[in-house]
Amino acid sequence: MTSASSPPFSFQLEASEKTEKGTARAGTFKTPHGEVKTPMFMPVGTHSTVKTMSWSQVKDTGASMVLCNSYHLYLRPGPELIEKAGGLHQWMNWNGPILTDSGGFQVFSLSQLRDIREDGVRFKDPISGNYHFIGPKESMTIQNSLGPDVIMAFDECPPYPATRDYASQSLEKTHRWLDECFQHHARPHDQALFPIVQGSTYPDLREKSAQFVQDFPAYGFAIGGVSVGEPREEINRIVELTAPFLPKDKPRYLMGVGTPEDLLDCIRRGMDMFDCVMPTRIARHGSFFSPDGRRIIKNAEFKEDFGPLVEGCSCFTCQNHSRAYIRHLFRQKEWTASMLMSIHNIQFLIETTQSARQAVLDSRFEDFYTETMVRLGKAKVV
Amino acid sequence: MTSASSPPFSFQLEASEKTEKGTARAGTFKTPHGEVKTPMFMPVGTHSTVKTMSWSQVKDTGASMVLCNSYHLYLRPGPELIEKAGGLHQWMNWNGPILTDSGGFQVFSLSQLRDIREDGVRFKDPISGNYHFIGPKESMTIQNSLGPDVIMAFDECPPYPATRDYASQSLEKTHRWLDECFQHHARPHDQALFPIVQGSTYPDLREKSAQFVQDFPAYGFAIGGVSVGEPREEINRIVELTAPFLPKDKPRYLMGVGTPEDLLDCIRRGMDMFDCVMPTRIARHGSFFSPDGRRIIKNAEFKEDFGPLVEGCSCFTCQNHSRAYIRHLFRQKEWTASMLMSIHNIQFLIETTQSARQAVLDSRFEDFYTETMVRLGKAKVV
Repeated sequence: MTSASSPPFSFQLEASEKTEKGTARAGTFKTPHGEVKTPMFMPVGTHSTVKTMSWSQVKDTGASMVLCNSYHLYLRPGPELIEKAGGLHQWMNWNGPILTDSGGFQVFSLSQLRDIREDGVRFKDPISGNYHFIGPKESMTIQNSLGPDVIMAFDECPPYPATRDYASQSLEKTHRWLDECFQHHARPHDQALFPIVQGSTYPDLREKSAQFVQDFPAYGFAIGGVSVGEPREEINRIVELTAPFLPKDKPRYLMGVGTPEDLLDCIRRGMDMFDCVMPTRIARHGSFFSPDGRRIIKNAEFKEDFGPLVEGCSCFTCQNHSRAYIRHLFRQKEWTASMLMSIHNIQFLIETTQSARQAVLDSRFEDFYTETMVRLGKAKVV
Repeated sequence: MTSASSPPFSFQLEASEKTEKGTARAGTFKTPHGEVKTPMFMPVGTHSTVKTMSWSQVKDTGASMVLCNSYHLYLRPGPELIEKAGGLHQWMNWNGPILTDSGGFQVFSLSQLRDIREDGVRFKDPISGNYHFIGPKESMTIQNSLGPDVIMAFDECPPYPATRDYASQSLEKTHRWLDECFQHHARPHDQALFPIVQGSTYPDLREKSAQFVQDFPAYGFAIGGVSVGEPREEINRIVELTAPFLPKDKPRYLMGVGTPEDLLDCIRRGMDMFDCVMPTRIARHGSFFSPDGRRIIKNAEFKEDFGPLVEGCSCFTCQNHSRAYIRHLFRQKEWTASMLMSIHNIQFLIETTQSARQAVLDSRFEDFYTETMVRLGKAKVV
């Protein structure tokens, strides 16, 4: 029983395990739309759908929380319409927790014409040609209208590589904007605003940022500015040096990551939440995840292979269809092939996080990590 | 209890109702993979998948039997591979009844280069550029390998319009080929070969053909050569004059039809089975069926319409999503929109046949027909 005034968000750290690179964690994140067991992976529904899938198929993968993109939904269909529908949950009929990003990453990366100002970014919609302005205030208004459980601070995500000067000035702006975000956030009673740690690849800036964001009354924190083209080792390095500065009693979200090996590397370094378009994107391009690494369905080796994508996998696709069948559909450009591989890839990532969680609960994460990475072909056999 | 030697196919006529245009029927068609209540509509899985959908979604629409195209499966992936997988049912993991067409319609309509001979058709695969030959014997070999419950005779489908001379000579060939089909059909114990009545738009040829095909030991009969570009009235006329010559105790399949109004018109004239790519094709182009006629999801009227595609519809799409949401997904070119509308459109046609069936069982088909057609905007209010 919780009283009416108990906070709508909480994080309970259930177990943690010291690893060679940090501390792996298992926890439970409570939101107004349900509890989420961490570590966990959020499928991405850019335009308020996970590409090629129905929400019921997304749910069947075991997904507990999903991500939508404010930038895309702001441009089309517009937050007013989604608010009129009763908010994102009702709009797209997903009753579990939802997180939206701030739009920051997209206005910097997708807009052809953009003008970064002190108070936000002016940019051109590549489709309509219209100009728009989004700053911290606007981002809050948009995300308050969309109504997800977790909303993200409007930040500048510096490109990789960035000079120290650029990174430092950009960080100042991100911090100033964070303050504005908290000032303008109109629904702190039912939406958790997560600050984002930036600082590019510079350890002192990352530390400074991690310390700065903790002054805000947040239910969780994110590490941003990774997965922008830097090598995998660089992501690991940034997470490794940043995570220890984040509070232990709040969930930690690593934005835009990633592959099975990225998830494991960053869980090992103390991260709890992840999102990435990769599982559905590579599915549409014909690749699927396996415990032995990524495979290409078009390959001739699968022509007469009547086994599932992954032996023993419990996803809908592997329970129902063969590699030979999916290969045929993919070669015939049938959208069903993309759907079937998207289902598999999402479930594969979710089960990777679930296995990692169980390993932490069982105090055997480090062994699990080594075995899984060796099989993925991502670590040397020791 | 059935003995081991009882026939694998049977048709039980449960009710029939005299209409202004013929006799509407309700029956049960038994196949090795289950019973099918008629009248019924078969979704089309051209390349062994219903476009944009999973087979579990197809099943949820209420579909009891589905159609696959021999021509496409012959070219890719080839009947040998499907046979090796254990046949079509196992290949695509659909455990209900399956019907394949003979490939005849496609070699005539899709092949750019084709050479109609006395013993079959030589044609060029438009993708690989290779030449192939299919005649009645080859079609039987292909369909025996694919292994569906119902296979179709290899026929010539004359174009519309066709001269009487052409139609007559073509019919002779189709009848000669039918004889060869029955000679070469290697699995009469578990596959039902349906003859196809041809004869273009000529009543005497249609009658002649309907009489001719009855000499063969068939479990069902089809009317072909319709839905090839002729006006709707012409389809009705052909069915109206042909159906009465077909045996009452066998299912009657009208190939390649159609729209809700076509189904009702032809059920009214005594047909039991239908197939068409239309529900999924118009879905991909943004249209959905409604009791008030076909609607275009892109239309501005649906922008803020938070109701289902069709009020009271029990399909997955209408139970879960709004017109405004689907419109947005369609405008964003999200494949999920096509999937959602395909689900709705297929279920709409299936429920149309189910309602027609119930009306026949209740001896009120003619009233049901008039009411439904008036609402569809396809008949004048009387």
